[in-house]
Amino acid sequence: MNKLYDVIIIGAGPAGLTAGLYTSRNKLSTLLIEKGIIGGNINEAEKVDNYPGFPQGISGIELTTLMHEQAVLYGTEELNDEVITVKTQDKIRIVKTSRGDFSAKALIIAGGSERQKMNVPGEKEFTGKGVSYCATCDAPFFREKKVAIIGGGNAAIFEALHVAKFASKVNIIHRRNELRATAIVQDKAFAEPKIEFIWNTVVTEVEGEIFIKRLKLADVNTGEESSVEIDGVFVAIGLIPSTSYLKDIVALDNMGYIIVNDRMETNVPGIFAAGDIRSNSIRQVISAAGDGATAAFYANIFIEK
Amino acid sequence: MNKLYDVIIIGAGPAGLTAGLYTSRNKLSTLLIEKGIIGGNINEAEKVDNYPGFPQGISGIELTTLMHEQAVLYGTEELNDEVITVKTQDKIRIVKTSRGDFSAKALIIAGGSERQKMNVPGEKEFTGKGVSYCATCDAPFFREKKVAIIGGGNAAIFEALHVAKFASKVNIIHRRNELRATAIVQDKAFAEPKIEFIWNTVVTEVEGEIFIKRLKLADVNTGEESSVEIDGVFVAIGLIPSTSYLKDIVALDNMGYIIVNDRMETNVPGIFAAGDIRSNSIRQVISAAGDGATAAFYANIFIEK
Repeated sequence: MNKLYDVIIIGAGPAGLTAGLYTSRNKLSTLLIEKGIIGGNINEAEKVDNYPGFPQGISGIELTTLMHEQAVLYGTEELNDEVITVKTQDKIRIVKTSRGDFSAKALIIAGGSERQKMNVPGEKEFTGKGVSYCATCDAPFFREKKVAIIGGGNAAIFEALHVAKFASKVNIIHRRNELRATAIVQDKAFAEPKIEFIWNTVVTEVEGEIFIKRLKLADVNTGEESSVEIDGVFVAIGLIPSTSYLKDIVALDNMGYIIVNDRMETNVPGIFAAGDIRSNSIRQVISAAGDGATAAFYANIFIEK
Repeated sequence: MNKLYDVIIIGAGPAGLTAGLYTSRNKLSTLLIEKGIIGGNINEAEKVDNYPGFPQGISGIELTTLMHEQAVLYGTEELNDEVITVKTQDKIRIVKTSRGDFSAKALIIAGGSERQKMNVPGEKEFTGKGVSYCATCDAPFFREKKVAIIGGGNAAIFEALHVAKFASKVNIIHRRNELRATAIVQDKAFAEPKIEFIWNTVVTEVEGEIFIKRLKLADVNTGEESSVEIDGVFVAIGLIPSTSYLKDIVALDNMGYIIVNDRMETNVPGIFAAGDIRSNSIRQVISAAGDGATAAFYANIFIEK
C-alpha cells in the first residue's frame, strides 16, 4: 500500500484537471490517475468557441494543456494507468490499478465517456477534419454547408435539428427504417425542410483529402452501395460512460452514468463524480470543469469533517 | 408587452454571461438583464488564479470582459435595469422591470448575491468614509494607514492580503477563534507581518467624525468591550442571495438561495437558476459558469419540448 492521499481523482479531462487544481490549491494531497492522454475527448476539438474567457476560440488541446499546467502548478501528482476497480475499506477509498493500490480519504470519479465510433475506414483520419461527435460544439462551423448526421435516437435528432440552424442541408443516415427518438422530436425533424432521411443505411467509409468530402454508404438489406457528398458528419450513435468497473460501487442511472446531487455527491459518502461521467451532464468543457470544482469543494468539506 | 424572447437571463455575472453565450449560440433569442455592472462580484478580484485555462491568473474584470465579449458575439441582447418581480402566465415567464415587462419562454435566474452588512451603528453613516465592502476598489486609498478587516473566510483573508500591500497595519477581526479560509490562504495571512488577528470579537459600533476613527468591539465569549483605532474597515462577512423578490415564485433554501437539481431546474418548470444564487453553489467563477451552461442547455430542451 502506498501513501494515503487526501484525494484521488480518476480521469484527467476538464473535470478531473479542475478538481485537481482546486484540491491541490487547497493543500490537499492529490493523485490524478489517467489511463490515456491528459485532456480527454475535448482534445479532438480543433476549435472550442464556447469555453467562456476565450472569445476568439481555442483548440481543445491548447485549452487542456493550460488546465493541466494550472493543476500541476499547485502540486497535483499524476499516474498514467488504468483503474481496475475501486473499493471502500473503513473510511478509506482504495483504487486498484495495474501498478498497485492507491488509497485516499475521498475519491472524485471524472473518467468521462467515450463516443461510440462507427469503426469504418477514414473515420479516425478525418476526426476534427469534418468528422465530429458533438453538434453543440461544432455546428456553427458548418454554416451553409452540407452535413450528415449518423443515428436515429434523441441525441441524433436533436443534433440534426441544431445543425439545421446553420447548415444548408442535413442528411440523417440511420441503419433502421424508423427513428428511436421521441415522437415530438421526430415531428420537428420531419417538418424541417433542410433535413432529408437516408433509411436502412450504414456508413462504410469516410473519404476526403485534407478535409472530409463524402461518405460511402451501404443499404443494410440489399447491400447496394452508394455515396453522399458532404462537408461534415456528426456521429451520434451513442456514448459509453467509463463506469463498467463501478456497477457494484456507486449508483448508476439506466444509461450507466453516475447519479449525483447538486454537490456532485454520489450515494456513497466520500465518493464524488464530475463531468461527462455523471448523470445529466451536458457534456461541455465548462460544465465539466464546474463540476470538478464543486466535487473538489465538497470533497474538502468531507475530509475536514 | 415587448417581444417574446426564447430566454431571459437575470444577472450578468459569470453564470448569466455563460448562459447567454450558450443560449444565443444555440440561436435562442436572449435578453440579459443586469441592474448594475456587467461581471458581478468577481470584478472586485485583482487576480483570479483558479479559473481553469489561465495558469498565470487573470484579473476579475479582464475575465468577465472576455466572457461578455463572447456572449454578445452570438447575439445576446442586454438591458440595464432592475427586476421588480417575475410571474408566470400560461406558459410565458414575465419579468417586470422599471422599463416595462419583458417575456420569455424560459427564465434563467443568475442574479448572484450581495455583501452582508454588519448592521451596527455608524456603519451606514461612514460607508464611503472609511467603511468599504471592496478592498480591490478602495485599498489604494489606505496607503500607510491602519485598517481592519471583518471576517474569517476566503474573501476576508484575500482582502486582508490585498490591503496589506498598501496599509501599514491590518487587523483581522473575526468572531470565531479560527479562520474558515482555505489552508493556503491562511498560511499567507499568518506569514504576513502587517497582519494581526483579533479573535472571538465582533464590531458593535463604527465611530468617527467626518471620517471613521475607531471601531468599538466586544468579545463574543466574555462580553468585554474594547476598541481599536483605525483609518478604514473592510467588511467581508458573507453574502446575501438576491432573491427577495422570488420568495413566492420559486423554492428557496433556509438561507434564501434557490433550490435546484443537477440540471439547474427550480421547482417551477421553465425557470432555472445558476451561479451564486443557487443552493449549494461553491461561489466560484468556474462553477457559476458551468451552472450557466447547464441551465442554458436544459432551458433549450424545455423550449423545444
